[in-house]
Amino acid sequence: MKIGIFGTGMVAQVVGGALMARGHDVQFGTRDVAGTLARTEKTGMGSAPFSAWIKDNPKATLAPFRDAARHGEVLINATAGGGSLAALASADPKDLAGKILIDIANPLDFSKGFPPTLSVCNTDSLAEQIQRAFPALKVVKSLNTVNASVMVSPAVVSGDHTIFVSGNDAAAKAEVQRYLGEWFGWQRSSILDLGDITTARGTEMFLALWIRLYASTKNPMVTINVLQGTTAAR
Amino acid sequence: MKIGIFGTGMVAQVVGGALMARGHDVQFGTRDVAGTLARTEKTGMGSAPFSAWIKDNPKATLAPFRDAARHGEVLINATAGGGSLAALASADPKDLAGKILIDIANPLDFSKGFPPTLSVCNTDSLAEQIQRAFPALKVVKSLNTVNASVMVSPAVVSGDHTIFVSGNDAAAKAEVQRYLGEWFGWQRSSILDLGDITTARGTEMFLALWIRLYASTKNPMVTINVLQGTTAAR
Repeated sequence: MKIGIFGTGMVAQVVGGALMARGHDVQFGTRDVAGTLARTEKTGMGSAPFSAWIKDNPKATLAPFRDAARHGEVLINATAGGGSLAALASADPKDLAGKILIDIANPLDFSKGFPPTLSVCNTDSLAEQIQRAFPALKVVKSLNTVNASVMVSPAVVSGDHTIFVSGNDAAAKAEVQRYLGEWFGWQRSSILDLGDITTARGTEMFLALWIRLYASTKNPMVTINVLQGTTAAR
Repeated sequence: MKIGIFGTGMVAQVVGGALMARGHDVQFGTRDVAGTLARTEKTGMGSAPFSAWIKDNPKATLAPFRDAARHGEVLINATAGGGSLAALASADPKDLAGKILIDIANPLDFSKGFPPTLSVCNTDSLAEQIQRAFPALKVVKSLNTVNASVMVSPAVVSGDHTIFVSGNDAAAKAEVQRYLGEWFGWQRSSILDLGDITTARGTEMFLALWIRLYASTKNPMVTINVLQGTTAAR
């Protein structure tokens, strides 16, 4: 499948690498191709710069956002949250129309140090901003509650754990649930459909807890399982 | 033990009732005793008004916030989040000095309907506001991530699930962890210490996800277990 990934950071590398390993035709989009390839310092998350990563992954192609949007039958938003709207705005609108965008980004603001805050929350979310700005896209929020390694290999965490989907288009959510299984091995029973795109506020705001779970456990592979109790009233 | 509970709503009733059932001497604090006893409509959460509840729990005493603060060797904040600071401001400062306040409230704002938003989040939290305004209190945030019935009976949810503590005073957090076990049956292995009081932002912001878990599962006894994966890098 042809997949366009917006972003070249750690999350884009891990997700794109996993998709390529499963035979998909992945094109990474960036604002400035020459700039991305010239950068040799580690990413903000401490992983290899894309220029080094792509040497080990020579089948990957890097292109302007506009081209990656055209390339993908399905699009994945893995930009830093603050750059998502501008990245999508560089696409030709007809390359977005009717496509699924899996939004795996979080609107984290590291400008005041660690822990980051959210640049949008509570009464809005990044996913809603994207859906409003690009109504022809079928935005499905997912995977943003876990580390990139868990996104693509849920089995690195033993035991049941939950991943969420939010979106306005039921068929698009069903398709994304299928991709989560086929691409990465997520069990259908582990996927919880929270509802429309406004429910992405819940999973984006969960990041405020996730970063503190990470800080207290020192384990980036930290995640949650949703459990339901029984009550006499049910 | 003498315990002062700020608030008379559903959470206060369930927690106070459970503490009384275990033999504790509980006084509930309210802004206006006569007004609380005169109110006969159900609470915002659909449970019995305090006036009806206290008839079934005649050992409970209701008093102004000021008296409940004096009564308690340990204090519990179970007000609606918006009323917490005013409630504590009615106490005599010498009745707060050195005491543990277990803050189980969430700053939910229902003024624009359901789902609620948070009246404080992202760069601050209710727990931090309380700790800043009343530095002589030892504020420990806990239990706010689950329904009141789960707070006092974690076994209503089968399987491991996690409860959090946040606070600046290590000894106070250790004491609260002991209370969670002795009062309500929380296993020590289920209690995760997130760090200082600023980490309460994480558990308060989790409410944005919790209300959507509740909406999608229709189960108020919904909660989470924290799991950690293994990684080659560890």
